[in-house]
Amino acid sequence: MLIEFGEQSTQKHAVVVGAGFGGLACAKKLRKSRSCRVTLIDRNPYQLFSPLLYQVATASLPEDDIAFPIRTAYREVQFVRGEVSNVDTTAKILTMSNGKTVSYDDLVLAVGSEGTTYGIPGVAENCLQMKSVSDAREIRRSLLRTYEDVEDGLLPLERLNVVIVGGGPTGVELAGAVSELQREIQREFEHIAPKATVTLLEAGPRLLPSFHPKSSKYTQKKLTQMGVQVHVDAAVTEATSRSLRLKDGKEIIAGTKIWAAGVVAPPHWKFLGETDRGNRIKVNSNLQLSDSIWVIGDAASYPDSEGRPLPMIAPVAIQQGKHVARQIRRRESSKSLEVFKYRDKGQMATIGRRKAVVEMNSWLRFQGSLAWLTWLALHLAYLSGGRNRTSIFADWIWNYIVWTPRRTITD
Amino acid sequence: MLIEFGEQSTQKHAVVVGAGFGGLACAKKLRKSRSCRVTLIDRNPYQLFSPLLYQVATASLPEDDIAFPIRTAYREVQFVRGEVSNVDTTAKILTMSNGKTVSYDDLVLAVGSEGTTYGIPGVAENCLQMKSVSDAREIRRSLLRTYEDVEDGLLPLERLNVVIVGGGPTGVELAGAVSELQREIQREFEHIAPKATVTLLEAGPRLLPSFHPKSSKYTQKKLTQMGVQVHVDAAVTEATSRSLRLKDGKEIIAGTKIWAAGVVAPPHWKFLGETDRGNRIKVNSNLQLSDSIWVIGDAASYPDSEGRPLPMIAPVAIQQGKHVARQIRRRESSKSLEVFKYRDKGQMATIGRRKAVVEMNSWLRFQGSLAWLTWLALHLAYLSGGRNRTSIFADWIWNYIVWTPRRTITD
Repeated sequence: MLIEFGEQSTQKHAVVVGAGFGGLACAKKLRKSRSCRVTLIDRNPYQLFSPLLYQVATASLPEDDIAFPIRTAYREVQFVRGEVSNVDTTAKILTMSNGKTVSYDDLVLAVGSEGTTYGIPGVAENCLQMKSVSDAREIRRSLLRTYEDVEDGLLPLERLNVVIVGGGPTGVELAGAVSELQREIQREFEHIAPKATVTLLEAGPRLLPSFHPKSSKYTQKKLTQMGVQVHVDAAVTEATSRSLRLKDGKEIIAGTKIWAAGVVAPPHWKFLGETDRGNRIKVNSNLQLSDSIWVIGDAASYPDSEGRPLPMIAPVAIQQGKHVARQIRRRESSKSLEVFKYRDKGQMATIGRRKAVVEMNSWLRFQGSLAWLTWLALHLAYLSGGRNRTSIFADWIWNYIVWTPRRTITD
Repeated sequence: MLIEFGEQSTQKHAVVVGAGFGGLACAKKLRKSRSCRVTLIDRNPYQLFSPLLYQVATASLPEDDIAFPIRTAYREVQFVRGEVSNVDTTAKILTMSNGKTVSYDDLVLAVGSEGTTYGIPGVAENCLQMKSVSDAREIRRSLLRTYEDVEDGLLPLERLNVVIVGGGPTGVELAGAVSELQREIQREFEHIAPKATVTLLEAGPRLLPSFHPKSSKYTQKKLTQMGVQVHVDAAVTEATSRSLRLKDGKEIIAGTKIWAAGVVAPPHWKFLGETDRGNRIKVNSNLQLSDSIWVIGDAASYPDSEGRPLPMIAPVAIQQGKHVARQIRRRESSKSLEVFKYRDKGQMATIGRRKAVVEMNSWLRFQGSLAWLTWLALHLAYLSGGRNRTSIFADWIWNYIVWTPRRTITD
């Protein structure tokens, strides 16, 4: 059974797989094309604004606010919910896991990335991940419920401890937010809460390895001041239900163990072509794997000017998504394809209230309150949908200015 | 093990069980007393604003917005999370289900109500309830997921149908909101959504039986215009996974079956004294069961001027909570107790956008847009916490004025 939409059979059919930053940017730009109709496929009917997932995990934002509904967003784009199980690149047909098929003229793979445990024993069973809404919900539940259970004498005090693995932006943001949550919660659980700790583990020599060393140093200093126990050169060798074991033999005991230590592209797509160590598909300078298959975002391995693959971050995905949409439209008007060039607009990470690091380029870096305000403003600007934007803005005013109690539902 | 808080042993200890409208109103008024310290016990660390639960169930509001955190709300009130399993009225000691004990001088039972299936076969297994956040989450998931599953061919079209049992305010509000959701969803599932139906069943002769017959008539007319199939005199005799069977033999086929047909007080407390058919404990004119036990809200059976028990609604609970707090303080200053008198401020129910019924008293009734705006304003006013109030106000502006897509997360 072939799903066919629209009536103009002369139209080309572009199918975008994945409704993250890259896929959505591509579909949005393609939808106005007259010569091409667009289908967007994702397992969820919403775009997850993952940069703010850690605020859902730490009970600052309601989960609804970081999900942008896709079906009603772009009228011209046909949305299909599901997962692609196979691609017949010769017949140009996708097979979905429910058995349905979708034919395409152009296929844009924007399938993102997923967490990886690098095969370290016990991690998959004992650590919580940080990639989906339900992951964030699990973390929030674990963080808040543990206080109730320790207060009730059901769990030992050591279970209040939190350990986060991975010193990238996600790990840093999570560690800062957990530390702030732990401090706030002291008003509620006066007898037990002051005993809770949060530990951040980074396998390499410094936090935020992709940032300038000065940003790393600032971040570690600020987190330490906030009470976070930061360990660098601290590779995890084993996880159990009670603790994490480090390569130097140290044991970190914690009830909530969060794994934010690395992402890889989904291995499912490796059959399509040559991939790098992170399962990322190697593409040509037009972001193509073949004449009709394009790969963008975290799933694509595309070298920067020094030959290293571009980082797995939203700005890369968005620029690539727009680029591919432009190329598909150029080709349809018989123009030649352009080479993709990434315009690096810098990177940033937040540490806590009035504490962040921003790096615009190699010489413009700043930290502290101004960096934090920049972080807030840019995240609001990148949110899809005025509703989510207003709603998060209002929540931030309550959290950061009015300082009201955190969200409470854990059942 | 006795839990003892505070150091002034001359203080009396008032324990309020249940943090609903009544319990919270009582604790709030008692907390400023110098001669008495207050402990509030509830199974959840939040007050659930149940009048808006139907909006969470129909994907209009995020669940966080109708939960008001208790622990941090009133500094002077000690909160204990848990369920009370037993009361020793002689020794004046509560036993919690975790084995801990709490001694009291005054006990205020504000334990609310729960759904009842009246023992009708299959209802407990096949119908969703509407009493807790997780109930609302289940309904929302069922409503939205079914569209996805029908679209994917996993479920037959008939599963899109929704049936709601109970023509009281909850059933009416839910039926209207489901109907509006079904209409909105037509933009997303053009091929299947127009086939979805919603049916409202009431066992008695008219909707909103506690309202004036003119309000009932208006409500039925408006719901019917909105496409809701309203059946009165339609008692359910059996529920299966596929349908509900009525006493006249008719079968209503539906995928989502919601039971909003009646509430009773929790039977757990019947051992304390004489109860009515709805398990409500009969109290004296001071709302007392004995010198040291007070019962308020849904759990109390207190006759109105015509001898009928007061309705199980928030205004009764709030007035009773405040009354009991006042009596406990009066008694401590050796004043005589006052008789509780309910000041009936009327009742209201919303049907849909710009449609509601409001009855202020026996002669002042109104309907339509003005009634709806009154409903909105009063519900905002009754919300605890400025944060939730602002947040819901903002959400209503988006829902009713800007008309943006509904909430989408269903996993």
